[in-house]
Amino acid sequence: MKSDIQIAQEAVMEPINKIAEKINLSEDDIELYGKYKCKISLDVLHRNKDKKDGKLVLVTAINPTPAGEGKSTVTVGLGQAFCKQGKNAIIALREPSLGPVFGIKGGAAGGGYAQVVPMEDINLHFTGDMHAITSANNLLCAAIDNHIHQGNALNIDSRRIIFKRVMDMNDRALRSVVVGMGGKANGFLREDGFMITVASEIMAILCLANNLSDLKERMGNILIAYDLDGNPVYAKQLEVQGAMALLMKDAVKPNLVQTLENTPAIIHGGPFANIAHGCNSILATKMALKLGDIVITEAGFGADLGAEKFLDIKCRYGGLNPNCVVVVATIRALKHHGGVSKEELNTPNVEALSKGIVNLEKQIENIKKYDVPVVVAINRFLTDSDEEIKFIKEFCGNLGVKVALSDVWAKGGEGGIELAEIVQNVLDKEESNFKPIYSIDSKIEEKILKIAREIYGANNVNYSPAAKKQIQEIEKFGLDKLPICMAKTQYSLSDNPALLGKPKGFDISVKEVRVSNGAGFIVVLTGNVMTMPGLPKVPAANRMDILESGEIIGLF
Amino acid sequence: MKSDIQIAQEAVMEPINKIAEKINLSEDDIELYGKYKCKISLDVLHRNKDKKDGKLVLVTAINPTPAGEGKSTVTVGLGQAFCKQGKNAIIALREPSLGPVFGIKGGAAGGGYAQVVPMEDINLHFTGDMHAITSANNLLCAAIDNHIHQGNALNIDSRRIIFKRVMDMNDRALRSVVVGMGGKANGFLREDGFMITVASEIMAILCLANNLSDLKERMGNILIAYDLDGNPVYAKQLEVQGAMALLMKDAVKPNLVQTLENTPAIIHGGPFANIAHGCNSILATKMALKLGDIVITEAGFGADLGAEKFLDIKCRYGGLNPNCVVVVATIRALKHHGGVSKEELNTPNVEALSKGIVNLEKQIENIKKYDVPVVVAINRFLTDSDEEIKFIKEFCGNLGVKVALSDVWAKGGEGGIELAEIVQNVLDKEESNFKPIYSIDSKIEEKILKIAREIYGANNVNYSPAAKKQIQEIEKFGLDKLPICMAKTQYSLSDNPALLGKPKGFDISVKEVRVSNGAGFIVVLTGNVMTMPGLPKVPAANRMDILESGEIIGLF
Repeated sequence: MKSDIQIAQEAVMEPINKIAEKINLSEDDIELYGKYKCKISLDVLHRNKDKKDGKLVLVTAINPTPAGEGKSTVTVGLGQAFCKQGKNAIIALREPSLGPVFGIKGGAAGGGYAQVVPMEDINLHFTGDMHAITSANNLLCAAIDNHIHQGNALNIDSRRIIFKRVMDMNDRALRSVVVGMGGKANGFLREDGFMITVASEIMAILCLANNLSDLKERMGNILIAYDLDGNPVYAKQLEVQGAMALLMKDAVKPNLVQTLENTPAIIHGGPFANIAHGCNSILATKMALKLGDIVITEAGFGADLGAEKFLDIKCRYGGLNPNCVVVVATIRALKHHGGVSKEELNTPNVEALSKGIVNLEKQIENIKKYDVPVVVAINRFLTDSDEEIKFIKEFCGNLGVKVALSDVWAKGGEGGIELAEIVQNVLDKEESNFKPIYSIDSKIEEKILKIAREIYGANNVNYSPAAKKQIQEIEKFGLDKLPICMAKTQYSLSDNPALLGKPKGFDISVKEVRVSNGAGFIVVLTGNVMTMPGLPKVPAANRMDILESGEIIGLF
Repeated sequence: MKSDIQIAQEAVMEPINKIAEKINLSEDDIELYGKYKCKISLDVLHRNKDKKDGKLVLVTAINPTPAGEGKSTVTVGLGQAFCKQGKNAIIALREPSLGPVFGIKGGAAGGGYAQVVPMEDINLHFTGDMHAITSANNLLCAAIDNHIHQGNALNIDSRRIIFKRVMDMNDRALRSVVVGMGGKANGFLREDGFMITVASEIMAILCLANNLSDLKERMGNILIAYDLDGNPVYAKQLEVQGAMALLMKDAVKPNLVQTLENTPAIIHGGPFANIAHGCNSILATKMALKLGDIVITEAGFGADLGAEKFLDIKCRYGGLNPNCVVVVATIRALKHHGGVSKEELNTPNVEALSKGIVNLEKQIENIKKYDVPVVVAINRFLTDSDEEIKFIKEFCGNLGVKVALSDVWAKGGEGGIELAEIVQNVLDKEESNFKPIYSIDSKIEEKILKIAREIYGANNVNYSPAAKKQIQEIEKFGLDKLPICMAKTQYSLSDNPALLGKPKGFDISVKEVRVSNGAGFIVVLTGNVMTMPGLPKVPAANRMDILESGEIIGLF
């Protein structure tokens, strides 16, 4: 069996200007980055502002398990399947982060015969968006310390600087640092820390901005610190949001690449799915909706986190109206939710499946609360038994939900035809009446309770004393009328990763509440979130190489 | 009078593929980065390996003064002048660093009517080379701390880690930091520091590498630390040089842009001119020599530092044979060397000029020691009097050196015709018998003494006890057969910035000696070198902005 990189390297890519042409982009609409990547001018959005949008399909999943679900693979494969049928479909995805590539993960851009390419570029510097975010973030940090060094007119409390430096690298030694050592010339000593670039609020802002001015305004609104009187200090008070926007002038433009089957794929922005909302940029999705008749996009983690944030945060800010949600599951993963250990997943076990399928059931139920039609995609494995497949089909049938088998990993678009046909049918015949699940005008605790009860199935929400105090402070400064961004384990509907399936009778415990005032959401943490990964004992970097011929080794 | 950015924004650029065509590059030879920047494939070098090189002209200068000399402007203008005469000339320049753009400097890419464009891109992310260097540098740093955290099999002495992290930002708070705080999960606590990216040894390596394999090998040879037994530890022992090379796969390719008059300009690499050698990459120069009949390049700071390192380090490693050296001076700067204060520089003063011209005389004498023909370029100012110009012409005439007036700042290539004609004459008629001034096989102290006496005009070299010990250590580990990279004030031929003109009877004091074993030179520090700048009270960033229309404000 071929590896992902072998398959990717054998791909026959079309020049990206040919792909652009297919979706009616002229030479002036794009900026090439080599032969197989380009950026799309935002003028295309302005020019098409009166054009009717295409249909928007979100691909999400059950709570992830060690068995693997293949959400990105299904997203890419579904796009390929539509194109195979002659449809004008465009895929919109997040861009990967450089740091993890050298850690455990290697690269990631779908899998098997459903991948986006050129995978080595997408997984390395791509078109430089991550570097622009890193620069803009760290310019603001340099301005903060410089402001204090030069007299601290804003009276910033160096013990309460919230905004951290970032680096696109897995580097645990930078998690917690002391800066400003070495005496007077080097500024004032203080504690600081580095996050990985995708955790930067600038990344979340890039993904929620509707244009360059909006991006600039949001960057200016970042709550960076408190002053010695306890009042909030915003980025705009340092007057560098213009320079930050200048650094982001190209990063704000969506990137166009293609799949193995030459389906157009817009890849832009990739915020964390815990402390941020985990979706590609609004601009990328809007661009795709103007250029394609069907847009397939995805959200991070399982539907309880990813789809919830996609719907309650991204769609709200972008004025987006999703037409269909595809929930991806695998029989292996559902059996895992039913209590089967990783080693036993290859053995047919309808009983375990029937126990674990409640996770899928709950995710379907949740999506229906947003009044958006749902389709289930079963990402096939060779070990799936006919009996198991039959069970799922019947189960979904009883819920009134259509289900399709997807075999895009092994067969590419061809393996997604059944899914594409079912989704097309839904798009043609079922109506979406999308509405978010809570009002941003509600109190913070009401919004959290709504998510916890309606989506997670929790009884109640408990708050640490610190979280209580933080909520009071956010309300005091009038920053509370924002959507909620839950940071919760991805592995369970609850906040306990060990509770699989559909847990009952649990409470959600909130440990910390922060406001990302620039991005425009309130982050609610139910546990510790690691914002700077480390490298393993033998990093993936150690197996990587490039030969004089340009041949790349070990990237995946 | 128009500002540099106004002039740059009014430029009528040709699409970069048209510029590429003019120098015989096919579509497959280049990778576009937008419409006005591209990278050139290294295959072009392989394909042309038997083709005769063009002529190589180095532009250098007297010791810089606050009056300004305009070395880059003359370099660009001379290239424009040659092209105006129908010659196939190519300019090779260093790429600017992002950090200083937001500090005091704003951008830099020549000036007036002798600039390279698109200046806003060149001064921001350009084609991402700096970011690639930052990533490769910091991957190595992460690997060092990770190695220690995971058991420290190499027995690295965490008190003696030489290789520092970098960021392309002016950020004094990062000069000296403590990393690894926060307990066991975050690794071991140690002191560290950040340099600005251009100070990274990876940058110097990029600029001295002859191909990708050479780059990889040099990166593996970086001396990163000592172990607890006092033995050197090299980067290759961490086995990440392959991954680092992968990160540099595009950065290794020279970048092509153009001047205001559409002259091809290859801009690639920009190492510090003190702790490194301060020239654009060997690959860029070699590429230009294969594509152009005349190549005009420059070196950092004055000729005593810049030209010396260009000739003794870069030309040695690249096997380059310079055909002519242009020494740039201004009458204002020479008067400053003659003791005139900045306020009085506009007043004609032949006496001061006759005192200060010894600086120019010494630089000419130095270049002659390398057996390369010299030409003097007087970069004109409106305040230059006829009498002063006459004096310089006679002075140079008596030395047997040709001199030309350059007015490229105000007139572009047209203002450089006289200079171009004189240089062409030298290229046609005078022979270059270039040889470096010292042998790398000499002892370290002999090599330093040679530079100090022959180039600076010093009597002797004194060493601090620390420097003595460092030299012994470098010799002990057999790392001493490398060229010398002097880190000295740029403002004087001596190591005392206050000694203008041609100082006499001075010694050079060496404070510290380091080996950049990957880059392949021994850095000799005569004072403290700042490798991480800070921001001023009101940073240039504060005046910058970009409007929704894309219009850029305040970049220069």
